[in-house]
Amino acid sequence: MSRPKVHTVEAPPLQVDEWLNVCAPVDLAGLRGKVVLLYAFQMLCPACLAHGLPQAERVHRMFREDDVAVIGLHTVFEHHDVTGPAALRAFTQEYRWSFPIGIDRPAPDGNIPMTMRDYALGGTPSLVLLDRRGHIRLHHLGSIDDLALGSAIGRLLEEGAARGEGGAGPTANGPADAGCGPEACVAPAP
Amino acid sequence: MSRPKVHTVEAPPLQVDEWLNVCAPVDLAGLRGKVVLLYAFQMLCPACLAHGLPQAERVHRMFREDDVAVIGLHTVFEHHDVTGPAALRAFTQEYRWSFPIGIDRPAPDGNIPMTMRDYALGGTPSLVLLDRRGHIRLHHLGSIDDLALGSAIGRLLEEGAARGEGGAGPTANGPADAGCGPEACVAPAP
Amino acid sequence: MSRPKVHTVEAPPLQVDEWLNVCAPVDLAGLRGKVVLLYAFQMLCPACLAHGLPQAERVHRMFREDDVAVIGLHTVFEHHDVTGPAALRAFTQEYRWSFPIGIDRPAPDGNIPMTMRDYALGGTPSLVLLDRRGHIRLHHLGSIDDLALGSAIGRLLEEGAARGEGGAGPTANGPADAGCGPEACVAPAP
Amino acid sequence: MSRPKVHTVEAPPLQVDEWLNVCAPVDLAGLRGKVVLLYAFQMLCPACLAHGLPQAERVHRMFREDDVAVIGLHTVFEHHDVTGPAALRAFTQEYRWSFPIGIDRPAPDGNIPMTMRDYALGGTPSLVLLDRRGHIRLHHLGSIDDLALGSAIGRLLEEGAARGEGGAGPTANGPADAGCGPEACVAPAP
Repeated sequence: MSRPKVHTVEAPPLQVDEWLNVCAPVDLAGLRGKVVLLYAFQMLCPACLAHGLPQAERVHRMFREDDVAVIGLHTVFEHHDVTGPAALRAFTQEYRWSFPIGIDRPAPDGNIPMTMRDYALGGTPSLVLLDRRGHIRLHHLGSIDDLALGSAIGRLLEEGAARGEGGAGPTANGPADAGCGPEACVAPAP
Repeated sequence: MSRPKVHTVEAPPLQVDEWLNVCAPVDLAGLRGKVVLLYAFQMLCPACLAHGLPQAERVHRMFREDDVAVIGLHTVFEHHDVTGPAALRAFTQEYRWSFPIGIDRPAPDGNIPMTMRDYALGGTPSLVLLDRRGHIRLHHLGSIDDLALGSAIGRLLEEGAARGEGGAGPTANGPADAGCGPEACVAPAP
Repeated sequence: MSRPKVHTVEAPPLQVDEWLNVCAPVDLAGLRGKVVLLYAFQMLCPACLAHGLPQAERVHRMFREDDVAVIGLHTVFEHHDVTGPAALRAFTQEYRWSFPIGIDRPAPDGNIPMTMRDYALGGTPSLVLLDRRGHIRLHHLGSIDDLALGSAIGRLLEEGAARGEGGAGPTANGPADAGCGPEACVAPAP
Repeated sequence: MSRPKVHTVEAPPLQVDEWLNVCAPVDLAGLRGKVVLLYAFQMLCPACLAHGLPQAERVHRMFREDDVAVIGLHTVFEHHDVTGPAALRAFTQEYRWSFPIGIDRPAPDGNIPMTMRDYALGGTPSLVLLDRRGHIRLHHLGSIDDLALGSAIGRLLEEGAARGEGGAGPTANGPADAGCGPEACVAPAP
C-alpha cells in the first residue's frame, strides 16, 4: 500500500544569541540526521514546570544523543522584566535541566520573541518535533502524554532509519538503538 | 547506511480456551499487519495493577485498532485456587479493562500455564511486542515506562508502514495514523 | 467559650469469625483508649486498591500502636463466590497489608454482611473513626484525602489526651506521641 | 494520666515590609487563637514548588480561616538578584497562590534574611507550626507528608479548643469545625 504524499515544512533556523548548558551554539542545520525536540517554555509557566520541562529532561536522558536532540527554548512573552538571562540561569541551575537551552531573541518591536514568531507558537509549553531532514512533523501546545510523544519519536526515528539515514554516531541504527529505555531494547528489523 | 541483520522469532500461537471482552477467539495469525502488545498478568499481582494493566488500557485506547492490537493474557502460576475464570471475570468487570483478555491454558503437568511456557515468560507483568509480521521484537518483565514503550511501538508501526504493510483498515498509513494521541498527530512522511 | 454538646453513638461490636495478620481476635472493647480506624473494603473494589487500603497502611505505619489502631474489614456484598477467605488471604499476602483484617460475617438472609449492616455502611471503601471512648466520630464513604484524615485523627488523639486518657503504653501522651511522622514531631502542650 | 510539661518558645515577630495577597500587613499577635502555619520558601527552590507550596495552598483551602492561618514567607538567601519583589509577584500571580505571602526583610549585613535568622531556619522549604497561643510547636525542614501534617494541625486545633480557646468566628468550636474536608466532618466531643 503506497502512502499518501504530504507537504511538510523545513524548520526555520533558531534565533538565539545565548545558550545554556552547551559550549557552542546549537544550530538546526548541524542536527540533520537526528530527530529534534524543540521545547518552548517560560520559567514562570506552571504547566512548563509540571509537564513540559520534566518531559524534555526524560526524553533527553532516554534517547541516544546520536538519534534524538532535545533543545529548550526560553520564549519569553510575559513578565519580561523578571525572566531575563540571569533569572533563567539561576532557574536552570536549581532545576538541573541538562539539555541545551537557548534564549529566544527578543523582538525589537513587540512582545513575542523572534523564534516563537517564526514557528507561530501559540504559547508555552509548546513542543515542535523535527524529523531527520529538519522538517516540522509535530507542533503541539500544552501537555502531551509520554505514550503519544514516545510513539511520535519512534516513528520519526524509524522513518529515517528505513531510508538509510542516521546520526553521526557509528551505531545509530545498530542493535543499541533509540527506543532502548533503561529496561527494554527493541531488536532491529530483520 | 545499511542496517545489521538480526534473526527474530515468530511468536508462538496463543493457547487460550476462554476469552473475555470479545465475541470470537483472538488468533495471532489474524493480526498480521498490526503491531501486537501481549500483556501477561495475574489479577492478584500488585505490579500488574499498579503499572501493567493501566498501561495496557492506555495503549488500547490511544492507538487505532487497525494498527495496534492489545491482548491481555491471564497467566496464572500462583494462587490458582482463587484466580480462576469466575474470579477473573469479576475482576475484569470491576476494573473495566476493555481489551481482549485470554485465559492462558493451564498445564496438565505443572504450575506454569502453556502460553507462558511457550513464550518463556519469567513472571508478571510481562510485555511482549510483536511486529506486523508477527515476530517477537520486545520481551520485558516488570514495568516499562510510557516513553520507552511508546517509542518501541512507534518504531514498529513505521517499520511496517515503510515496507508498504498495514492493517486491514483503509487509512492505516494515512494522516490519522498511530501516534495520534488525543492532542497530537504526526504528519506522515513526504 | 464552652463547646456545644453533641450526642455520639458507641460503635457496635465487630461481627467477625476470621482474622488475618493477628494471632487473636480483635475486639473493640479492648481498644478503648485508642483512636480506631475501621476500613471497610472489598478486594475487587478499584477505589479500595487505589485509595483506601494504601491509606490504611500509611496510617497503620505512621502512628504508634498505643494510640491508633487500624482495622481492615472485608465487607463482601458483591462477587461473593470469588472473594471468600482463601481469596482474601492470597490478596493480603500479595499486597502485604500489615494491619489486622477481619472478615465480616456473612448474613444468613441476604447480601450485606453483618457488621456492614450494623454500621449502616453504604459501600466500599468506607472509613469509620472511633474516639478513645469507642464512639463513632467520623463515617465516610469514598476517598478522603490525607490532610483531612490526619487532622481528624489528630483531633481525636488530642481530645482523649486532654481528658487524661491514653493508650496502654507508658508514654502514650509523652513527647514521642502520635503526630510523629518520619520527619516531624510535635512538642506536647506546656 | 498527667502529661509531662515541656517548655515551648513564643514565635518571634515576622520581619516583613511587603505583603502579597493581603491588604494589610499580617502580624502574629493578631493571630492568637488560631493555629498558624508559616511556610518559608524561595521561588526558585524545586522542593518548594514540588511539595511545600502546593501543601500550603491545600492547607489554606481546607481549614477554616477562623482556625488555621497559612502564611508564606519568601526567605531569599540565594539568587537575590533574580528573586526580588517583582519576580515574586509574577511568580505568585502565575501560580495563583492565595494565602498571604510576606517578603522576609533582607539583612543589612549578610545573606540570610531577618525572620529566617530569628527562627533559625535551616533552608527551604521550612515549615513552622504555631499553636493558638503563638508558641512554636513544630519546626521542619524539607517535605512532610499530609498525614503527619494534618495530624499535627488537628492536635493543635483540639488542644486550644479543649482549653476553651478559639478563633474570632462564632462557631470556631462548633460542629462545622476544622477537620472538615470537602468530604468529611468530625462530630465534636460529647
